[in-house]
Amino acid sequence: MALKDAVAAARNEEGIAVVVAAVKARFGDRAQTGQTFREQHGHTTTYLPTQAPDAVVWPETTEEVSEIVKLCAANRVPVVPFGVGSSLEGQVNAPAGGICLDMARMNKVIVIDADDLDVTIQPGLTREELNVHLRDTGLFFPIDPGANATLGGMAATRASGTNAVRYGTMRDNVLALEVVMPDGSIVKTAKRAKKSSTGYDLTRLMVGSEGTLGVITALTLKLYGIPQAISGGICTFPSLDAACRAVIMTVQMGIPVARIEIVNALQMQAINRYNKTDYPEQPCLFLEFHGSETGVAEQAELFGEIASELEGGPFSWTKVAEERAKLWKARHNAYHAAEALAPEKKALSTDACVPISRLADCIAETEQDIADTGLIAPIVGHAGDGNFHTLVLIDMNDPDEIERAEGFIERLARRAIAMDGTITGEHGIGQGKMAYLREELGGAVDVMKAIKTALDPLNIMNPGKILPA
Amino acid sequence: MALKDAVAAARNEEGIAVVVAAVKARFGDRAQTGQTFREQHGHTTTYLPTQAPDAVVWPETTEEVSEIVKLCAANRVPVVPFGVGSSLEGQVNAPAGGICLDMARMNKVIVIDADDLDVTIQPGLTREELNVHLRDTGLFFPIDPGANATLGGMAATRASGTNAVRYGTMRDNVLALEVVMPDGSIVKTAKRAKKSSTGYDLTRLMVGSEGTLGVITALTLKLYGIPQAISGGICTFPSLDAACRAVIMTVQMGIPVARIEIVNALQMQAINRYNKTDYPEQPCLFLEFHGSETGVAEQAELFGEIASELEGGPFSWTKVAEERAKLWKARHNAYHAAEALAPEKKALSTDACVPISRLADCIAETEQDIADTGLIAPIVGHAGDGNFHTLVLIDMNDPDEIERAEGFIERLARRAIAMDGTITGEHGIGQGKMAYLREELGGAVDVMKAIKTALDPLNIMNPGKILPA
Repeated sequence: MALKDAVAAARNEEGIAVVVAAVKARFGDRAQTGQTFREQHGHTTTYLPTQAPDAVVWPETTEEVSEIVKLCAANRVPVVPFGVGSSLEGQVNAPAGGICLDMARMNKVIVIDADDLDVTIQPGLTREELNVHLRDTGLFFPIDPGANATLGGMAATRASGTNAVRYGTMRDNVLALEVVMPDGSIVKTAKRAKKSSTGYDLTRLMVGSEGTLGVITALTLKLYGIPQAISGGICTFPSLDAACRAVIMTVQMGIPVARIEIVNALQMQAINRYNKTDYPEQPCLFLEFHGSETGVAEQAELFGEIASELEGGPFSWTKVAEERAKLWKARHNAYHAAEALAPEKKALSTDACVPISRLADCIAETEQDIADTGLIAPIVGHAGDGNFHTLVLIDMNDPDEIERAEGFIERLARRAIAMDGTITGEHGIGQGKMAYLREELGGAVDVMKAIKTALDPLNIMNPGKILPA
Repeated sequence: MALKDAVAAARNEEGIAVVVAAVKARFGDRAQTGQTFREQHGHTTTYLPTQAPDAVVWPETTEEVSEIVKLCAANRVPVVPFGVGSSLEGQVNAPAGGICLDMARMNKVIVIDADDLDVTIQPGLTREELNVHLRDTGLFFPIDPGANATLGGMAATRASGTNAVRYGTMRDNVLALEVVMPDGSIVKTAKRAKKSSTGYDLTRLMVGSEGTLGVITALTLKLYGIPQAISGGICTFPSLDAACRAVIMTVQMGIPVARIEIVNALQMQAINRYNKTDYPEQPCLFLEFHGSETGVAEQAELFGEIASELEGGPFSWTKVAEERAKLWKARHNAYHAAEALAPEKKALSTDACVPISRLADCIAETEQDIADTGLIAPIVGHAGDGNFHTLVLIDMNDPDEIERAEGFIERLARRAIAMDGTITGEHGIGQGKMAYLREELGGAVDVMKAIKTALDPLNIMNPGKILPA
């Protein structure tokens, strides 16, 4: 995928005209065709050029979603579901135009089942809004991608974040979905039981399908009790390799670490500059432990022993909420801190994920590649999962820099594949990584295509995403 | 599904004759057509009548599996994958005849990646064999259905067991699969990274598909460090309701219980008779905790407090391996203990799974139903998941008792559905529960059928399972 051009697709002008007129007549102010609205819904946090839809519609019910999808199916017009637009690989672009379904008005908590540790919600609710709703229940939802994304969008892209090493990803935390299928039919993928062996796992098929198989209209999610105690801290290491070896030992010893984030030296520099802190500017792990009072102390101390064995540390940790908040603010600001290294440039966030035994090699080779290519690209990662991000800062007016960045991203994807890893741990394929999907998965892509064709024979659901033509 | 008759399907005699002759010529002694072999591979632990395949073949490589599937596809002959035959709902029956693929010779450990806590194996390896292999690594694979099933079969039926409350089911513990698709092509569903967002989750689609979408020929599985300490014990309660409330509180408090098994009074009676033990014959929980020395003590003590609040207990627990082994032997023998209540009858094991808030109601109504119906049917369950089994003892020569059992099973399935639960938590659909699949999942069944037709247009992969015609 070249950064400068997203692939455009043939537009069905006639069908689009019919559908746009119909949704305007039917939904009034809840259907907008102004350029600003349209561009806002194509151009988001992706680095790819904007491909705006022809109209944006704000449905309020599952039945309305079904009605719109049926209308689009009858006229062979694309449907692009939209959360807050924080996806990173062009997932909300509309290369063949069509209708953007902005789920913002479907943001209700339907029911909290506290005894069962689950909640059923509409897809437009964001993860932070959900946790605010849960405030008085003693429960929380742990999955935390960088953005305050909608939970529908997070399910659609199989998102995860810093807590995944302990709590899993959206794959593990969606119990059931309601989905409007490409023919407008409304399907529930599962009941509310914690496990089931009834037929094909449609829940997991929909999670990560990026809107290409249907529109998620309700989700039942797992919840967790807020831990009795939390401890956390930061630990420096003499090398990335030592930091990665500490991660492997932590996971192998079964320390149930809740967060174990790796940050490279350049990113630590960026953090210090941005937050006016004075952390050592060398490879670090940011850690958090959840459990009982004695449990989190025990975990932190065990980790400290591992760190000192690897000549890292000393590991100073705390149970004090304010101190932990400061620490994690620095980590969560990593994206903005990195951007601030070259504010005139555009930040392109990419990710890869490898078996943790290969993480040190993969990051080291990537750092060398960055140095060789002359790019500015700090690295942070969810080390416990072998997943890391590089934020490549690109001057979009410099064709040479764009080309070097493209080459870097391609080599990163291939490096991950060569290490038995994946081209994306949590961002998804969208438009940006279509070119590498077959390199990673070979003939499995044909199986995906067969499923796509079977469920969406008209190819109206978010066309031009995931599956290369 | 009537117990007395499994649905037979039209046989393609001509194609079968061609394929049987071909596999005999090609595989020699590794292809058998004698009645004993054939019946052994249809008639297993299921209560359903035997429907034998026409030949049993023992492939030794993925390429051989591919070759056989291609041969069957060319002649439109069914392929039925076979592990050890411990599935419970007729999954290995061959209603339209065809070729049984016995995976027993594909039972190698391909590679243990200890640093990454994963292992890649062939599908015919059993779970106990895997754990023997892992003995010197400090790692183990936790999923433990009642039988010593093959790991390929466990993936195919999305099996779980007593540890699922802590470690998840096969859904959560398969990282990647190699699958021979219905056209004979060989597909790898994922790389070895711990998480990924690359396209549709084919791994999870294959897990639980019961051989209807392809033949699993290799699996990469997650492993876990053997806990530093394990504690366990048994705790009686004045009522099933109190026991279930203890389960809910345990889960809600975030006690990371590794096993929390419920056993009803009749099953405790059976256990005492069978093992010559003298446990109180009232509702009990069997528990196990994994963690550090202090962690497992803390967990056990916390649970003890919960139990005493609900007038259960006293909860006596132990870290001594021999005592724990005795305890779990009693629990694991539950099936045979129940059978021994009426050795002349046939045991039919069925399962259901509901949100844990409904578990007490569901078991209580089920006990009442058993009493009303006059059946002998003790109950054990994986309470932390809301999953329970009834072992219905049936005199297969008594048409009236068969009819009562059928009515009971149907009511149990409908009761689970009405409580927002599922007709099977871990046994799968097979032939036995096809009739209730649509009652549980409605239009989702049509989505499954569309996928089946797309991937297996000739309907040769384990036909007559999961999806009602």
